[in-house]
Amino acid sequence: MSQLLGDVWSPVITPFGQDLAPDISRFVSHCRWLSESGVGLAVFGTNSEANSMTVGEKRALLGALIEGGVDPARVMPGTGHCAIGDSVDLTRDAVAGGCAGVLMLPPFYYKGVSDEGLFRYYAEVVERVGDDRLKIYLYHIPPVAQVPLSLALIERLRAAFPGVIAGIKDSGGDWGHTQALISRFGGDDFAVYAGSERFLLDTLRAGGAGCISATANVNPVAIVEAARRYREEGADDRQEALNEVRGLFEAYPLIPAMKAVTAHFSGEPGWRRVRPPLVELDSAGEDLLVSSLTRNGFRMAGLR
Amino acid sequence: MSQLLGDVWSPVITPFGQDLAPDISRFVSHCRWLSESGVGLAVFGTNSEANSMTVGEKRALLGALIEGGVDPARVMPGTGHCAIGDSVDLTRDAVAGGCAGVLMLPPFYYKGVSDEGLFRYYAEVVERVGDDRLKIYLYHIPPVAQVPLSLALIERLRAAFPGVIAGIKDSGGDWGHTQALISRFGGDDFAVYAGSERFLLDTLRAGGAGCISATANVNPVAIVEAARRYREEGADDRQEALNEVRGLFEAYPLIPAMKAVTAHFSGEPGWRRVRPPLVELDSAGEDLLVSSLTRNGFRMAGLR
Repeated sequence: MSQLLGDVWSPVITPFGQDLAPDISRFVSHCRWLSESGVGLAVFGTNSEANSMTVGEKRALLGALIEGGVDPARVMPGTGHCAIGDSVDLTRDAVAGGCAGVLMLPPFYYKGVSDEGLFRYYAEVVERVGDDRLKIYLYHIPPVAQVPLSLALIERLRAAFPGVIAGIKDSGGDWGHTQALISRFGGDDFAVYAGSERFLLDTLRAGGAGCISATANVNPVAIVEAARRYREEGADDRQEALNEVRGLFEAYPLIPAMKAVTAHFSGEPGWRRVRPPLVELDSAGEDLLVSSLTRNGFRMAGLR
Repeated sequence: MSQLLGDVWSPVITPFGQDLAPDISRFVSHCRWLSESGVGLAVFGTNSEANSMTVGEKRALLGALIEGGVDPARVMPGTGHCAIGDSVDLTRDAVAGGCAGVLMLPPFYYKGVSDEGLFRYYAEVVERVGDDRLKIYLYHIPPVAQVPLSLALIERLRAAFPGVIAGIKDSGGDWGHTQALISRFGGDDFAVYAGSERFLLDTLRAGGAGCISATANVNPVAIVEAARRYREEGADDRQEALNEVRGLFEAYPLIPAMKAVTAHFSGEPGWRRVRPPLVELDSAGEDLLVSSLTRNGFRMAGLR
């Protein structure tokens, strides 16, 4: 059984100012709130609009986060870019800053690429970073990246870089695939995270590590509690309650919906901003979502 | 009828050194050869492995190209990135350098995004670049980017930024779609380019501008001749000859195949290198391709 069992991470949503520049102080403050709620900080994920930011913007945010006193052992930045040089630069910062690891997308522009090409990409990053402290969590998200990571590729990477290839986030949305990853690779030396808390209980029961999930941005306390108490009575009811909240968010585009709800509960209207090509939730949608959440008893306790 | 009729551009393949860094002098020299063959330089396209390069690497290559004395009026760099800041930086360089225009991908990480979001992306770039000399050629390549540009979006962009939205490259591979673009928007103020010389004659006859095509890297003279003489006798035979050569290349992954053939005919083995996630052509494939081309009478005259 993995020591990581019950581990919950959030791809932290990124606040933008009026000029769409990252709002660094609000970002650090939101990370502190998530951290106090027991959630690890998978900053620069899909739900962070990470690919809508330049490498320079991400380096500045990561630097501010670590300087801001957040425990780097609970930070796992997304560092995978289409260009190897970009991936290497941000990964080096993460390693130098003492981060727990990095969550690494494959290069996602070219489609239908071979396992050999993807192996070379990850190998090049590992070799250029050249640091024993590096821990890579692979990021499998075919619905968005459209570049899947095969079991054969994972096996080859683990064999070539033992101790470095430390786990995977499976955002494919297919429980059978997550199950296959856990039964083939899961254990103390390879953490399998579900990409949504919908699969949290199944993942933990099967021996996976936990979840790295968008809605951990807005519902962190309940997800963390469900993870930590998954062996106790009421686990299925707690999972069901998570699914209900998740379902309310999923009725809308997820990133704008989470930002609108964060704006509403924090009283900070700037949270509503997204970068193009995303579009913020309209006020009718926000009103409906907030009322359905409120009827459900949803709150974001301690949100600043 | 457009003044641009018969216009042929190549998404210039990018040479890499042993450390996979761009080989700047070989790049400039290859651009000169293409330019002397009558082909415009659509550097940093899909076939240039542009998204496998950092913005800094592309800025250095563009600077060297313009300093190297190539006519910037025949240079149209690809400048579309997922992050607006990256697109703005490279576009500003292109405008400042006097380039003919820029070929701009939509942000390609998020899928299923709205026209409103894509409009805001392009609008933000236009406004931040803030230069009347800016000419944007939209880049529609759904098979790779997986983010199509709708006719309604193009219409809205043209209306909002007349004189700036100057044309489109259609790499969808569907002649009906290219035809629809030409009949709705084509003319002196909007150049429609086919994404392959397979559609060159059809495009020119319908009133489109020409093509921006990968294989113009390796077969420039014949494509340019077919374009310039498209109204003359023998046009269909010339088109048929282009298709034959294109077909030989298309039997292999296109970028590695073009690089292998360039290596063979130039005697410069370094041309074979591609950046991950691409993989170079194996020597058996290269031998087969080169013999089939040679049997066809193919040559790369004047290649250095």
